[in-house]
Amino acid sequence: MKLKVYLSGEIHSDWRKQIIEGCQQENLDISFYSAVTDHDASDAAGDVLGEEANSFWRDHKSAKVNAIRTRTLLEKSDIAVIRFGDKYKQWNAAFDAGYCAALGKPYITLHSEEIIHPLKEVNAEAKAWAETTDQVVEILKNILN
Amino acid sequence: MKLKVYLSGEIHSDWRKQIIEGCQQENLDISFYSAVTDHDASDAAGDVLGEEANSFWRDHKSAKVNAIRTRTLLEKSDIAVIRFGDKYKQWNAAFDAGYCAALGKPYITLHSEEIIHPLKEVNAEAKAWAETTDQVVEILKNILN
Amino acid sequence: MKLKVYLSGEIHSDWRKQIIEGCQQENLDISFYSAVTDHDASDAAGDVLGEEANSFWRDHKSAKVNAIRTRTLLEKSDIAVIRFGDKYKQWNAAFDAGYCAALGKPYITLHSEEIIHPLKEVNAEAKAWAETTDQVVEILKNILN
Amino acid sequence: MKLKVYLSGEIHSDWRKQIIEGCQQENLDISFYSAVTDHDASDAAGDVLGEEANSFWRDHKSAKVNAIRTRTLLEKSDIAVIRFGDKYKQWNAAFDAGYCAALGKPYITLHSEEIIHPLKEVNAEAKAWAETTDQVVEILKNILN
Amino acid sequence: MKLKVYLSGEIHSDWRKQIIEGCQQENLDISFYSAVTDHDASDAAGDVLGEEANSFWRDHKSAKVNAIRTRTLLEKSDIAVIRFGDKYKQWNAAFDAGYCAALGKPYITLHSEEIIHPLKEVNAEAKAWAETTDQVVEILKNILN
Amino acid sequence: MKLKVYLSGEIHSDWRKQIIEGCQQENLDISFYSAVTDHDASDAAGDVLGEEANSFWRDHKSAKVNAIRTRTLLEKSDIAVIRFGDKYKQWNAAFDAGYCAALGKPYITLHSEEIIHPLKEVNAEAKAWAETTDQVVEILKNILN
Amino acid sequence: MKLKVYLSGEIHSDWRKQIIEGCQQENLDISFYSAVTDHDASDAAGDVLGEEANSFWRDHKSAKVNAIRTRTLLEKSDIAVIRFGDKYKQWNAAFDAGYCAALGKPYITLHSEEIIHPLKEVNAEAKAWAETTDQVVEILKNILN
Amino acid sequence: MKLKVYLSGEIHSDWRKQIIEGCQQENLDISFYSAVTDHDASDAAGDVLGEEANSFWRDHKSAKVNAIRTRTLLEKSDIAVIRFGDKYKQWNAAFDAGYCAALGKPYITLHSEEIIHPLKEVNAEAKAWAETTDQVVEILKNILN
Repeated sequence: MKLKVYLSGEIHSDWRKQIIEGCQQENLDISFYSAVTDHDASDAAGDVLGEEANSFWRDHKSAKVNAIRTRTLLEKSDIAVIRFGDKYKQWNAAFDAGYCAALGKPYITLHSEEIIHPLKEVNAEAKAWAETTDQVVEILKNILN
Repeated sequence: MKLKVYLSGEIHSDWRKQIIEGCQQENLDISFYSAVTDHDASDAAGDVLGEEANSFWRDHKSAKVNAIRTRTLLEKSDIAVIRFGDKYKQWNAAFDAGYCAALGKPYITLHSEEIIHPLKEVNAEAKAWAETTDQVVEILKNILN
Repeated sequence: MKLKVYLSGEIHSDWRKQIIEGCQQENLDISFYSAVTDHDASDAAGDVLGEEANSFWRDHKSAKVNAIRTRTLLEKSDIAVIRFGDKYKQWNAAFDAGYCAALGKPYITLHSEEIIHPLKEVNAEAKAWAETTDQVVEILKNILN
Repeated sequence: MKLKVYLSGEIHSDWRKQIIEGCQQENLDISFYSAVTDHDASDAAGDVLGEEANSFWRDHKSAKVNAIRTRTLLEKSDIAVIRFGDKYKQWNAAFDAGYCAALGKPYITLHSEEIIHPLKEVNAEAKAWAETTDQVVEILKNILN
Repeated sequence: MKLKVYLSGEIHSDWRKQIIEGCQQENLDISFYSAVTDHDASDAAGDVLGEEANSFWRDHKSAKVNAIRTRTLLEKSDIAVIRFGDKYKQWNAAFDAGYCAALGKPYITLHSEEIIHPLKEVNAEAKAWAETTDQVVEILKNILN
Repeated sequence: MKLKVYLSGEIHSDWRKQIIEGCQQENLDISFYSAVTDHDASDAAGDVLGEEANSFWRDHKSAKVNAIRTRTLLEKSDIAVIRFGDKYKQWNAAFDAGYCAALGKPYITLHSEEIIHPLKEVNAEAKAWAETTDQVVEILKNILN
Repeated sequence: MKLKVYLSGEIHSDWRKQIIEGCQQENLDISFYSAVTDHDASDAAGDVLGEEANSFWRDHKSAKVNAIRTRTLLEKSDIAVIRFGDKYKQWNAAFDAGYCAALGKPYITLHSEEIIHPLKEVNAEAKAWAETTDQVVEILKNILN
Repeated sequence: MKLKVYLSGEIHSDWRKQIIEGCQQENLDISFYSAVTDHDASDAAGDVLGEEANSFWRDHKSAKVNAIRTRTLLEKSDIAVIRFGDKYKQWNAAFDAGYCAALGKPYITLHSEEIIHPLKEVNAEAKAWAETTDQVVEILKNILN
């Protein structure tokens, strides 16, 4: 069985790479999906449709163009891993968690102990909370072995 | 027709009261629902099930007990208003937005101009972005009149 | 049993009034719902959220604010009547028909013989095509008697 | 990942060919689907089931036979591109947009600036509005790269 | 709790009246729904939309007009009772059973022992097979008491 | 695109073979599914689970064992062709039609002119009525070409 | 808001009565539903449809007749409380838990500490584990106050 | 057609091996899925996320990590076989049965005659009750041949 895993959240560290490489070392048959993780490219995704003077509408256009990608890939995935870093608002990551919860799609959160309290509603619907990418790899291994 | 509106998010200002009173002045037939908005009571919702030494599990129990309320009320509601203040992580508000998006339930965001950018994914699925509670009342009036 | 009927489409003739009065004369227990039918008010529904220089975004904001109303009322309705007049594009009416079709919600079209051909895909999923409001009243009577 | 894209709407220009070729030049792994785009063949799709004297029923039979194709292909697709030309009623295109909206399937509209206003409800649920086929190719590229 | 029960099938005997009266005697709080049970009125339901020379299209129009009623009422009901008499094809009754099965809506069949074999697929998804209306009343009583 | 077509109904003529061969001659890429079409084998499908003295329970067991197959294959199929012969009750065929209707799965009926009237509710939800297997092949060709 | 709560499981102690009375003392506006809790009546629910020599079929008939009640009431309920006593198999209670989990319907388990381990999969999807009926009342109060 | 079958329940006998080998001998094209069947590994599935002093939370973590696997595989499967042995509570097996019932996914129970009565609600929604693995193989053969 081939598993599809969506990697949502933080784009400022290499956690995606760690999970993907960890799974490759374990020979797990997983396809990984993700939003556009280049921050500038993501912000500019809608610019091809014409420039906007107003920053709300520029963001709106880019966010919707990105949503075609993220909604499609998230719906196709069996499981999501949702990463919260220690900085920034990261409301898109929490949004993805709520989206998964409503669909009954299982997700794992990946974050440090410092932010347990503000993430309590997100973790209430999560299937697991991991602190390290190694733990995530172990959990994915548990599905396929 | 009676409308059911869920008020999600920030608990440190009186925006709920403003919307409810604004709608009453307009004689709009709306039932408003909400999470437990008393911060300490919310954090302690699970304590009745036994004390926990570990803070993760205390949060987990309370968040799940609260989720019985929030999921039930959100599912029953026709529309959600989701408020983001300028402080705190407020991941539960973004989580509710994602939950609504997956269900196709329309929601309105209520936040200041300063946080447009980090909320762009949340607003991409919103039906409206309001900056004041008066604007929210006007939008609700547009549904019922 | 109380029936809920959504009246979608043309806003330049009094077909809604004719159906509502016809059903009242037959003492049919029906609640009728509809979009905002005042053309200028509908176009301006989003203006409360701030003016827009760009006409696309003004339309976009108003259409989304109106969608909170129309999606909510259409979802609550048991049946839709969708009226196509002889003028204008009326893509919103065809959009509502497609929306109903996807949900399996039965709808009746109301239009003249002249536009049978361009409406053939819309009628392929309709439960009935009526040419007069009296015919619509008769069909609604058939449900309740 | 292989993407499935449905191309709905106008059959009097070569916009489908432009998008398909544009995606091939970018080496995007996409299967494109579409209704029968030969106008006469589409109108005659039901004739195999017997001739009809009445034009309503001829249209009805053909539209239903075509609906087996269009509903099946649209349901299988991940994303739709919906093209509105400047002529004709094109209610089937708006119908497809409404159908997608109800299913939560993302769609992109492709049309000129002249028809922004009558398409405002259709665009309210769209993820993007493009004016050129090049823009559509760029958006599809954003999903797969 | 008020229960909604749909009575589908045979229109040539008074089984509906027997069940309704039996439930009234037991003071069961049930609303009963049904198709139009006057055979000629049912066949003529679509005539208000214009006469048809071709018998297929006359039947088609009437059946679709009736379907607005039957689909709406069946969807609203909690439970269906589906009666098969010893005569006629009664494919509409079997159709309603399949419709209920796909929706997971529980149904009870009511028929004589003679037609057990041809109804085996219909009974495979039924929650009960009754031979008398008294038995149906007892089963409904079991839900409400 | 590979299409999946379920062939439901009559087992006493070779209509399945005609359709399958007709599609092969047209090189249509279709997988065909069906219930067990050997009458005795179908009736005996449950016997492996132990003999039954009571004919109702023998039928019940076999019908349920067969339902594992038919429900699974029907759910996987894109389209159904439902054949009604001139003899027998064939309630299972009408049941399958109702099942498809509730799921929004398109189906084609295949039957002679003599039984138009008793099949009017079944045809009201059908996408096409064919009288010959050649017509069915033509309709399937219209989907894939 | 009126809440609907389904009380599933053990029928050999008065836990239902304790919860109902506890909620009445708190003036909580809740309708409580339940399976038939008289053991002999439950086992005999199908006897009205005719006696069975074979105990499997007697059980089967009764269980299906009861399922009309339990499935209908469980689907209508907002929340379930599922009680596991220390004796008997109680597979019906675990079945109801799985049913709720698949529907995304929140449930609370009520059981002693002794059976934590065999209930771990049931609790993995529960929103709360209570040991006393007072705790259940407190949780229900948290939803309505 | 390739079939996907989930094998749920008892882990203390080799019934899975018997079914898999029996299907191989019949050359049935089936992929079999299952929970982790090593008892200790299953209990320890969550330990990688950190040790727990409290046994409830250790079980909770492991059960949720396992649920990622079991929910994902069960959702992907066409059919489930659910085995109840004569010992232990086996509430997870009954839970899986309820989960399948709510999704309309067909399942077969496999158990001895001794436990017919406590399994009557589970069997009420099952498509077949088998006593031997050979019977299960025969039923699976009936789907694919």
